[in-house]
Amino acid sequence: MCLVRFFLKLLLFENKGAAFKTLRTEIMQFLLKKRRAVYFDHNATTTVATRIRRTMNRVLKYHYGNPSSLYSQGLKATGIIDKARCQLATAILADPSEIYFTSSATEANNAVLKSLGASFFPTKTKIISTPIEHSSVINTLEYLKTQGITVDYCKVDNKGRVILSSLEKLIDNNTFLICCMLANNETGVIQDIVSINQIAKKHKVLLLSDCVQALGKIDLNVHRLGVDYATFSAHKLHGPKGIGALYIKKGSPFTPFIHGGHQESGMRSGTESVHNIAGFGAACEFIDRKITSNQNHIRLKQSFVNKLQKIKPDCIINSPENFCLPQTINIRFTSINNSEMMAMLNYHGVAVSGGSACNTNEEKPSHVLTAIGLSNQEAKESIRFSFGECNTIKDIDYTIGILKDFITGKILFVNSIHPVLLDEFSQKNKSLYIIDVRPKFMLKSTPGIPGSHEIAYSEIDDHVNQIPRDREVLVVCQNGPLAQMAAYYLKTKGINQISTLQGGIIAWCKTKSL
Amino acid sequence: MCLVRFFLKLLLFENKGAAFKTLRTEIMQFLLKKRRAVYFDHNATTTVATRIRRTMNRVLKYHYGNPSSLYSQGLKATGIIDKARCQLATAILADPSEIYFTSSATEANNAVLKSLGASFFPTKTKIISTPIEHSSVINTLEYLKTQGITVDYCKVDNKGRVILSSLEKLIDNNTFLICCMLANNETGVIQDIVSINQIAKKHKVLLLSDCVQALGKIDLNVHRLGVDYATFSAHKLHGPKGIGALYIKKGSPFTPFIHGGHQESGMRSGTESVHNIAGFGAACEFIDRKITSNQNHIRLKQSFVNKLQKIKPDCIINSPENFCLPQTINIRFTSINNSEMMAMLNYHGVAVSGGSACNTNEEKPSHVLTAIGLSNQEAKESIRFSFGECNTIKDIDYTIGILKDFITGKILFVNSIHPVLLDEFSQKNKSLYIIDVRPKFMLKSTPGIPGSHEIAYSEIDDHVNQIPRDREVLVVCQNGPLAQMAAYYLKTKGINQISTLQGGIIAWCKTKSL
Repeated sequence: MCLVRFFLKLLLFENKGAAFKTLRTEIMQFLLKKRRAVYFDHNATTTVATRIRRTMNRVLKYHYGNPSSLYSQGLKATGIIDKARCQLATAILADPSEIYFTSSATEANNAVLKSLGASFFPTKTKIISTPIEHSSVINTLEYLKTQGITVDYCKVDNKGRVILSSLEKLIDNNTFLICCMLANNETGVIQDIVSINQIAKKHKVLLLSDCVQALGKIDLNVHRLGVDYATFSAHKLHGPKGIGALYIKKGSPFTPFIHGGHQESGMRSGTESVHNIAGFGAACEFIDRKITSNQNHIRLKQSFVNKLQKIKPDCIINSPENFCLPQTINIRFTSINNSEMMAMLNYHGVAVSGGSACNTNEEKPSHVLTAIGLSNQEAKESIRFSFGECNTIKDIDYTIGILKDFITGKILFVNSIHPVLLDEFSQKNKSLYIIDVRPKFMLKSTPGIPGSHEIAYSEIDDHVNQIPRDREVLVVCQNGPLAQMAAYYLKTKGINQISTLQGGIIAWCKTKSL
Repeated sequence: MCLVRFFLKLLLFENKGAAFKTLRTEIMQFLLKKRRAVYFDHNATTTVATRIRRTMNRVLKYHYGNPSSLYSQGLKATGIIDKARCQLATAILADPSEIYFTSSATEANNAVLKSLGASFFPTKTKIISTPIEHSSVINTLEYLKTQGITVDYCKVDNKGRVILSSLEKLIDNNTFLICCMLANNETGVIQDIVSINQIAKKHKVLLLSDCVQALGKIDLNVHRLGVDYATFSAHKLHGPKGIGALYIKKGSPFTPFIHGGHQESGMRSGTESVHNIAGFGAACEFIDRKITSNQNHIRLKQSFVNKLQKIKPDCIINSPENFCLPQTINIRFTSINNSEMMAMLNYHGVAVSGGSACNTNEEKPSHVLTAIGLSNQEAKESIRFSFGECNTIKDIDYTIGILKDFITGKILFVNSIHPVLLDEFSQKNKSLYIIDVRPKFMLKSTPGIPGSHEIAYSEIDDHVNQIPRDREVLVVCQNGPLAQMAAYYLKTKGINQISTLQGGIIAWCKTKSL
């Protein structure tokens, strides 16, 4: 079809350049129509399984009672919660009375750290953690530092495993808690929690383990691990968002973090999200089967690595070979900026991430990757692929195909304008349409380029029709990556004359002040 | 049908007593079949509207992306959250940037009180509140007292309205916050927040208002109210459980309560419950229409009161006539224990409550009712009826019919055994089957009656078939009310030879120690 048009245009027009340009656009459009939706970011979140969604829908439809109410509707709701509590307890081999539902693992991590911090302070003031924890731990610990708690981050080796001898050395009489995740969200590294617990118990120190990424992916037995506290989240194993859980070993100290109506045996107040809890319970059913399907993930991962090494022999695997989540792999694409690659992959329907979803807005290199020894630049060249139940070998092949085209330069990049050249570029394109995609709160702290249109990245869909198709468009953000995502996204919406500003407003401000 | 059987039995049997007993049972069974499900506890929680449930189901099905992810799926999820934020902002006439989603109003109340408590301490240490606040405020304030914060509860008049002159007198240089709910959950009394805010602003004190019960029931304009902080919950207006919101007036101080991945502009971390947020947004649509339907509620309420006063002329209305939520009424049934009445009503399919659902397990008289001058006994004779969109005049008539039968003694009570007579009762009923329905954690603190079967009230449904139909059953709990609910509930399951222990285990222990 487009070939016919191409030759027609070659015959009709003298301007062959224009004809070639049209051909290119048409081929792009044709290819885009063939694009596949591939989700390779299961560590960020997962689809809600149909069975789980239906369970939730049933609860929303029929069981609206407040679990605190004593009449039948309330009783029914309590029954649903108790069932889910048993399902989670069975999945992690705990006693149901040791499980407390929270709104997220983030809340559960906050609850344990702040509850223990307040209880032990000022008798004992030290927490030991690792530099590769999730932001819900790291940022809570950094907050606790401002409240007088000392936090020591124990070194990890170049695969991300805690160095046990270093850990033991850090423990003193002042230490009341060790906080170490079971499986890392970015590289997939699995810690030796059993040994860490032995060290903790030897020194009579409590142990909290963030088990969010481990649940549903590897065997999990909280009693065997020996931890005092463990935290979980439903949305990492095809359950709903907005529900987490806290395991507290019988007898381990805890004071409530949220006060109120004494729900969850008085340990966590707030009317229970019954449908979400039911969804979490349902997600814990057949967990053995999920773990068995790991073999499939391992095969996919291996196939992906093998094929990738053929097209990009210098790529480096950041994830460890052993002690790693079966479906997670973190790869460094030497000399390629990960935000550019993520934007390009998203343009072709492939969802991956540069690290934790919870850190995406920060535009800083991953703290996990720098902790295992990568430089800032190397961390910014790394991408996490996390596979899930829905992925097949076709997804792998499709993605490899795109990566190959990208690496070999077959895929057109979005132009990137160096900030020094911005004035020149503006003069050349008199009708330049500048879009500032930063969130509103950022606009206040750093003013943007005069005359730019403020369309936050999150609202871009609502304004896409306002953007002129016949003018050169420049997308800018604070540091660069967000603009790249936006620019590629706008390309899928038919805006082709598009560029981004290298290093964003920050880089541009620097050139101004020089 | 049962009349035919009755006369047949009269002809066939000599034992007329047994025939009458059978007739009575059959009539009860017949009546129960005619029973109507009436939900009069909309202040505890509401059904999820079909439109809202479908919106949520759609999000769960199609929009699984993590809102923090930069690719299309994440962008879509962010768009859903932003839309809901605008919907709530429109409903309360705020700016969307002033709205932060939380997991519940309880969390939002905790967040403001604890955040400000920590920020102002030790420069300023005093919070002024009212004695009729929700438990999520009262219990958080009581916690803050243990952290060095002074809390003064301002007096309310006999209708529950804050006495403004008393409030102003309580303010001193040490005061940083006034915390006063807009509408009370138990009596429905509406406070004069505008005047309270004028006093607060005059003394440069911040104002937090729990607006949970007001949203969707009365006009709500946060800017007109002038509050610095307001809290909301979706499940009180036919939205889902597990989602709340916090309004923070532009410029009012706040530091995050939950630390982590900087969601909600860094003010509240934790992956957003996108479907729940979408549900909250949908619940805020057509809020004007909801408020218009108040006229219907007022009519229902008036009809209920009129009819009730005919059958129980000495009942007393605890709710104020003016300044009251249109669909809430709190009524004292003199000389009738509310737990007995609630249990009886539940047996007939009518759901009402003795006060806040969040306090039901405490078995204490309502702190709201005692604050407006009722004695403990009077508070224990009071019941809250809160009407909703689904209620009709038929529900009123049905309930009035049951109340009439109950008041005139036509409805059989569950036997209540005085603890002093328990030994005698046991000896008389050798095969007495005792069920202890207390939650597990209570069993530890106070041991039960020897030989009793521990079946927590919340698990009663799972064990109902184990309970013998041919033996006399005695249901016990800590103080009495829970056992009454359980006993009436078991009657609906065909267990007719049933009694409860007056005053529960606590009363029984006292007789033992005498």
